[in-house]
Amino acid sequence: MSDIYENVMEVARRRGFVWPSSEIYGSVAGFIDYGPLGAMMKRNVENVWRNFYIIQEGYYEIECPTVGAEAIFVASGHVKEFADKMCQCPHCGEYLRADHIAEEHGVEGAGALSAEMLKSRIYELPCPACGETMGETDVFNFNLMFETTIGPGSQRRGYLRPETAQGIFTDFARLLRFYRDKLPFGAVQIGKSYRNEISPRQGMIRLREFSQAEAEIFVHPEEKKHPVFHRYAEYQVPLLTYGLQETGKPPVQKTMRDAVDEGIVANEYVAYYIALTHELLVTIGVDPEKLRFRQHMPDERAHYAMDCWDAEVFSGRFGWVEIVGIADRTDYDLRAHAANSGSSFTVFIPFEEARKVSRKRIVPDMGVLGPRYRGRAKAIADTMAEATPGEAGVTVEVDGEEIFIPAEQYQIREEEVEVRGEEVMPHVIEPSYGIDRMMYVVLEHAYAEEEVEEEVRRVLRLPPAVAPVQAAVFPLMNRDGLDLIARQIADTLARRQIVAQYDDSGAIGRRYRRQDEIGTPFAVTVDYDTKEDDTVTIRDRDSMEQVRIPVDQVADVVCSLIAGTMTFRDLAA
Amino acid sequence: MSDIYENVMEVARRRGFVWPSSEIYGSVAGFIDYGPLGAMMKRNVENVWRNFYIIQEGYYEIECPTVGAEAIFVASGHVKEFADKMCQCPHCGEYLRADHIAEEHGVEGAGALSAEMLKSRIYELPCPACGETMGETDVFNFNLMFETTIGPGSQRRGYLRPETAQGIFTDFARLLRFYRDKLPFGAVQIGKSYRNEISPRQGMIRLREFSQAEAEIFVHPEEKKHPVFHRYAEYQVPLLTYGLQETGKPPVQKTMRDAVDEGIVANEYVAYYIALTHELLVTIGVDPEKLRFRQHMPDERAHYAMDCWDAEVFSGRFGWVEIVGIADRTDYDLRAHAANSGSSFTVFIPFEEARKVSRKRIVPDMGVLGPRYRGRAKAIADTMAEATPGEAGVTVEVDGEEIFIPAEQYQIREEEVEVRGEEVMPHVIEPSYGIDRMMYVVLEHAYAEEEVEEEVRRVLRLPPAVAPVQAAVFPLMNRDGLDLIARQIADTLARRQIVAQYDDSGAIGRRYRRQDEIGTPFAVTVDYDTKEDDTVTIRDRDSMEQVRIPVDQVADVVCSLIAGTMTFRDLAA
Repeated sequence: MSDIYENVMEVARRRGFVWPSSEIYGSVAGFIDYGPLGAMMKRNVENVWRNFYIIQEGYYEIECPTVGAEAIFVASGHVKEFADKMCQCPHCGEYLRADHIAEEHGVEGAGALSAEMLKSRIYELPCPACGETMGETDVFNFNLMFETTIGPGSQRRGYLRPETAQGIFTDFARLLRFYRDKLPFGAVQIGKSYRNEISPRQGMIRLREFSQAEAEIFVHPEEKKHPVFHRYAEYQVPLLTYGLQETGKPPVQKTMRDAVDEGIVANEYVAYYIALTHELLVTIGVDPEKLRFRQHMPDERAHYAMDCWDAEVFSGRFGWVEIVGIADRTDYDLRAHAANSGSSFTVFIPFEEARKVSRKRIVPDMGVLGPRYRGRAKAIADTMAEATPGEAGVTVEVDGEEIFIPAEQYQIREEEVEVRGEEVMPHVIEPSYGIDRMMYVVLEHAYAEEEVEEEVRRVLRLPPAVAPVQAAVFPLMNRDGLDLIARQIADTLARRQIVAQYDDSGAIGRRYRRQDEIGTPFAVTVDYDTKEDDTVTIRDRDSMEQVRIPVDQVADVVCSLIAGTMTFRDLAA
Repeated sequence: MSDIYENVMEVARRRGFVWPSSEIYGSVAGFIDYGPLGAMMKRNVENVWRNFYIIQEGYYEIECPTVGAEAIFVASGHVKEFADKMCQCPHCGEYLRADHIAEEHGVEGAGALSAEMLKSRIYELPCPACGETMGETDVFNFNLMFETTIGPGSQRRGYLRPETAQGIFTDFARLLRFYRDKLPFGAVQIGKSYRNEISPRQGMIRLREFSQAEAEIFVHPEEKKHPVFHRYAEYQVPLLTYGLQETGKPPVQKTMRDAVDEGIVANEYVAYYIALTHELLVTIGVDPEKLRFRQHMPDERAHYAMDCWDAEVFSGRFGWVEIVGIADRTDYDLRAHAANSGSSFTVFIPFEEARKVSRKRIVPDMGVLGPRYRGRAKAIADTMAEATPGEAGVTVEVDGEEIFIPAEQYQIREEEVEVRGEEVMPHVIEPSYGIDRMMYVVLEHAYAEEEVEEEVRRVLRLPPAVAPVQAAVFPLMNRDGLDLIARQIADTLARRQIVAQYDDSGAIGRRYRRQDEIGTPFAVTVDYDTKEDDTVTIRDRDSMEQVRIPVDQVADVVCSLIAGTMTFRDLAA
């Protein structure tokens, strides 16, 4: 086969999975439409994700707007930091990523260079668009958020969110109350996010508008043992640690328990979601042989992240592609929002038993304060009684005025107070999935061409859980009542929530090929024997084997095959 | 009860259905977050919608970006027309809808007045924000699309889509091919749309970012009989025709067949989707007593629309609110995109039998053309043979040059040709739903307060199909193994895809109330009898009746109650 990407995308466009947006007006790079089959498959992928995060893990989904006020993204750091180094070719006018030009010509770590440094590095390099030498060209920061204004008068700046996560962070207090003020808890969001890329050229891998599925799990900073870690403790995953990357070695297979015990993965939470992600990706059809978890290098990791791993999937076209990131973001986000908003982002954690703590209490001397401060003496005394004394004295604020009371003007009494608990700012564990990239790699890994009866058979070996059409129903001929029986079967399947496609046009072989190409796992054919003995054939997409089963068992059998509680081999046996 | 809106929104905020977005930074009007319960309920509402439009009707869903290039919205008319008349109060600086000011002071048809006219009408009216007389104040058009720029250099203008429909229209050719070039076909889209409202003040009713569910059904312009009209032919719906509105009369109940036969509704397609919408809205919990279909007045209807009906729902706070629009948009959209893009938006409809049509064919005279045009004579002759002759002659284009051949230089032969069919530009039937408005009215209609044992019981009478939590499971006490049995029941329900909430905290009465308030239809309680006889109680939210059933039947019973195949009354009997 020629280039796998071209082949996959040709099928995707022609059959209605994915195509460039608004083609009739000359499509804009970085925007795609999911067609009828693609949108169905995407919903299936998202529902598998929900099965893991909502049903299995018990986290609730929320839905925040895609347009956010500027304050949110000032706090999150995106207004300042979410930028790429850009330049414009002085010859052809094309906008370009300066770091990419440098990188492609062997400048290592170009992504970390300053604008000034990059400018000098690309001086003698050719423009990737027109080939002329770049020469004297300014390199500047280009913020990747789409900007807009909210309401009239352009008074209020807004941005399209660069990630769904910020909506969950800003809702922290409401979510905490929903979860009845207890840690750990989590919230998830599936939705659109945006990056105004400078010049995206990688199809579904680098989009300006894309779908994310993110989970933000709020945990006690000192309790990073996952409550059901045992579920994945023995699960093995190929880990490419930063040590292995430095020495150019391949990933090692590790159980999650070993990975945590040996200090390879920072804690049980991160390890748990690495394993869950592995299971999830394999469930939707990623080839486990082309899947690894790569740890961020210390200089690549965000400064606040305690540990970060990317699920990388190998693509025949793009090489290793990051499709999921799993990070321990510590309290960075909550701390930033607390500082910027003035709201509370802590959780009151009661001690198991209230603790006695001794503390120094100021006993104001009204004999001194009274004559001196008159009408304000009482207010000053009350404030002093709650204040913590310094060595030389205590400063209290009364009616907006700061007043210093020297130590010799009061006495100190030591007393025991009961402390019931403490305010804790949670840490955040974040698994973040790129749905469009998952879609692409699943299509690529599912795509196969094989020779059958001297013809090329194109087949998408999608798992039944994500295939857009789950069953096809064919009457051998469009007459003699075969069509009626077939339509009844299709209706029965629909009532069982199975997406079934009825097709009566063309030779039966062509109909099978059409379904193979879109990944339909099972096809049911009604033929003349059906009228004799009430049986139909059911055909398996992958093995192309056919088995006869009674008409009245079709729905149960197809449901079991799709749910995976029965294999086609069981049926054939 | 005081104001129903305040009560509903108080529960919605406190329990996690809906709250204003980014409250910690001072929320921006027109943006809301769906919390854990609201997002779940919204997914349920969207899935009911999908059951109607995707599973019942067989239309496929597609997913287009929310950011679109300018060309799309130039063609659709939004760049030019999608605007409100705005003014700014010269005293307090508030931005205001000029037509709203006029309307509130009794100016009829203010929405249709020009900017100049409005300016003079509001001259003596008070500013609704500060109360000062408006005086000399410019009225101008404010486009309601959010604007942004795509890529660097601000070269390319983009807009956040004001409706999902345009994505379906621009994909027409791809969709037509997907449906194998046959009419009718339909495509649907559920997703975010945006209106940069001048000053939205109506909570969930007027949002700047909202969710739409739209279906675009492409039909033959002369065949507007719905293929399965019989499904809704006898379905009765309250119709408020424009005639009734003019005379101030109430709606009339009509069957869809009568409505079409009497010429009240333009055609079967529009009538079919009026009835389907009625059924859908009642299914999600809209009170049928507070639901009517209002026909647009001729001067209110878009000039291209053949007929248009709004599903209006009565709200205790907002009066009659439009939540769905059903329109026959004719070929307006496709014609506009065809003209602007130069692409084809027609469907080739084969005649049942090929028709013989006589046509005039040019017979070029090589004896004349040869000497005159030499090397180009052959090409000219070929082009002439395909051209339609005018009276004086024929103009042909060869190699980019237009050449006129006078009639005397050729002969004409009449001949019969076979025409197999014709190119037809479809008409579009569009049912368009506002999901957020549906959410609000369902919450309002579901909300009830009643006195039970001298306490106020707040209850959301949501249909089980849309309730965010479908079943609650309680151990009477959190000990003696009751908790283990209850957890097992909750797990069993989860495996059956039922959203079940386990709750062991507080008195049992309080737990029931908590679930009543969020609309959980059924609660299962494990008590000491359970350990004796393996039965539990199941309680009905609405009647508060309780029935004992065997533990091992809980999942089946709850599933049947939720699916509606069994009622609680059946169970109690």
